[in-house]
Amino acid sequence: MTTNQKFNFRNYVKNTSLTVGVNPVIFSVSEDKLKVLLATFDPRLKKSLPGGAILKNENADDAANRVLQETTGLESIFLKQFHVFSEPDRFSYATVYNELHEESYKPPEDIDIPDRVFTIGYFALVNFDTVHPTGGIINVMSEWVDIDTIPELMYDHNLIIDEALSSLRKELFFEPIGYNLLPEKFTMPELQRIYEIILDKPLTRSNFQRKMLNWGIYERLGERKEGVSHKRPFLYRFDKERYDKAIKTGINFCL
Amino acid sequence: MTTNQKFNFRNYVKNTSLTVGVNPVIFSVSEDKLKVLLATFDPRLKKSLPGGAILKNENADDAANRVLQETTGLESIFLKQFHVFSEPDRFSYATVYNELHEESYKPPEDIDIPDRVFTIGYFALVNFDTVHPTGGIINVMSEWVDIDTIPELMYDHNLIIDEALSSLRKELFFEPIGYNLLPEKFTMPELQRIYEIILDKPLTRSNFQRKMLNWGIYERLGERKEGVSHKRPFLYRFDKERYDKAIKTGINFCL
Repeated sequence: MTTNQKFNFRNYVKNTSLTVGVNPVIFSVSEDKLKVLLATFDPRLKKSLPGGAILKNENADDAANRVLQETTGLESIFLKQFHVFSEPDRFSYATVYNELHEESYKPPEDIDIPDRVFTIGYFALVNFDTVHPTGGIINVMSEWVDIDTIPELMYDHNLIIDEALSSLRKELFFEPIGYNLLPEKFTMPELQRIYEIILDKPLTRSNFQRKMLNWGIYERLGERKEGVSHKRPFLYRFDKERYDKAIKTGINFCL
Repeated sequence: MTTNQKFNFRNYVKNTSLTVGVNPVIFSVSEDKLKVLLATFDPRLKKSLPGGAILKNENADDAANRVLQETTGLESIFLKQFHVFSEPDRFSYATVYNELHEESYKPPEDIDIPDRVFTIGYFALVNFDTVHPTGGIINVMSEWVDIDTIPELMYDHNLIIDEALSSLRKELFFEPIGYNLLPEKFTMPELQRIYEIILDKPLTRSNFQRKMLNWGIYERLGERKEGVSHKRPFLYRFDKERYDKAIKTGINFCL
C-alpha cells in the first residue's frame, strides 16, 4: 500500500469550516478575594469571558495578548496557555442571533460562518490596581466578579474558568507566579496571603517564608512597609535575573 | 457605542481557511534510552511526528487517541495536551506537492485546501514492549528513534519534540507519571532509572525511594524481581485508588 493511496485530502477539509479563538481567564486579587474579569457582549445575553478569534498573521499568543490589551489596557501580562476547548458542539454563532432575533446579529449573507469554533484557554495574572476594564473590540464592557459568585456564562465559559483555576493552582505549586498579582514591592505576608487566597487554604507562615527566601529569587529592599502593623515587615521584589540563574541550577520551586 | 456597531463578523472569517490537527509525541524507554516514535509519510520526504486532522464529531483528545491507536495499536495510553502550535507560516500542504511534483500529492481541484494548519501537541508515555509501530492511516511506517539522534523533521516537528520533552520533564517534577513507561510490575531501581533517563541526571537512591514510598501510591507486591542481582528487589505496581485518595488529601508529588 503506497502513501498516496492511503492519504486522503478530504480528511483534511471535513473540518475546515472552523475558527480558532482565544479566551483569557484574567485573575486578580482585591479585597482579599480572587476575581475574574467577565465581559458583556450584549446586556440581554449571559456574560462571557473576554475573547476573540485568532486573526490572519497572528499566532495564538498574539491574539491572547491583543485581547488582554484591549480589555485591560495592559501589555506584557503574565499569560499562560492551559487547554484547548474543542467539543464539536461547544459554540454556535447562531446562538446569539437566535436569542435576540436581531438583524444586526445575523451574519451577512456573503459570509460563510464556521460551524465549529475551538478556543484556546489562557490564564492571566494581573495586579488589580493597574487594570481599567473596558469592553475591548467585541464587548460593551467588562467587570471583575468574585470567583465564588460567577453567574451562568455563555457557551462553555464556566468550564473554562474551572479549568483555568485548577491550572493556576497546579502551576502555583511548582512555579513562583503569585507575585504577578501584587504591586512591584510587596511583603512576605502579602505574598503568603495571595497563595492562601488562590489555594483557598491557610499556609504555615514560617514554612512559607523559609521556602520563598530559600529560592533566592526575591530581593529584599532597604525599605519596610509602613503603617500596616507595629511590625513594619520588609519589602521585597521579584528578581528576574536571580530567577533565571536559579532555573539554570535546576532548582525546583515546589511549594 | 452599541455592541452590534462594534462587533464585526468579518473578524471571525478572516482565518476560517484553517484546519486543526494533533501531533502526539510518543515517548518510550528502551535499552536505557529515551525514544520518540517518528513517522514516514513518504520515503523521499523528511520524517515527521505521527498526526492527523481533528475530524468532524471529534474533539482534540478523540483525534489524539485515534492517531495513537492507529500508530501504536494501543488504547488508553497516558496522553497529555501540552501546547498549540499556531504560527501563521508553520505548515503548508503545498510543501509536499512542491517537493515531489507528483499528481497524487496535488489536492483535488474541488477541495479548498486550508491556508493555515494549527496543531495541538500531546505527549504520550508507553511501555516499549507493548508497542508494534505501524504507519497508521496517513503514513507508510513509523519507528522508534533515540531522542539524541532525531533528524531534521518536516514543518516545525523538531520544535514540537523539544517542547514535549520540556513539558514531560516539568510534569515529572510534580506528577508521578514515570511508571507509565514500565511494565505493570516494576522495581524501585527500575522506576528511578526511568526518572534519570528522562531528566538526564543521576538521582540519589535513598531520597528517591523514600519519596516514592512516602507518597503511598505504589503497592509493594509479595514477589521480588528474580535474576537481576543477588539483591532480588521487591516488585511494585501503581495503585490508582491510592493515588486518587492521595490527591484528595492535597498531597503534592514534588520530586
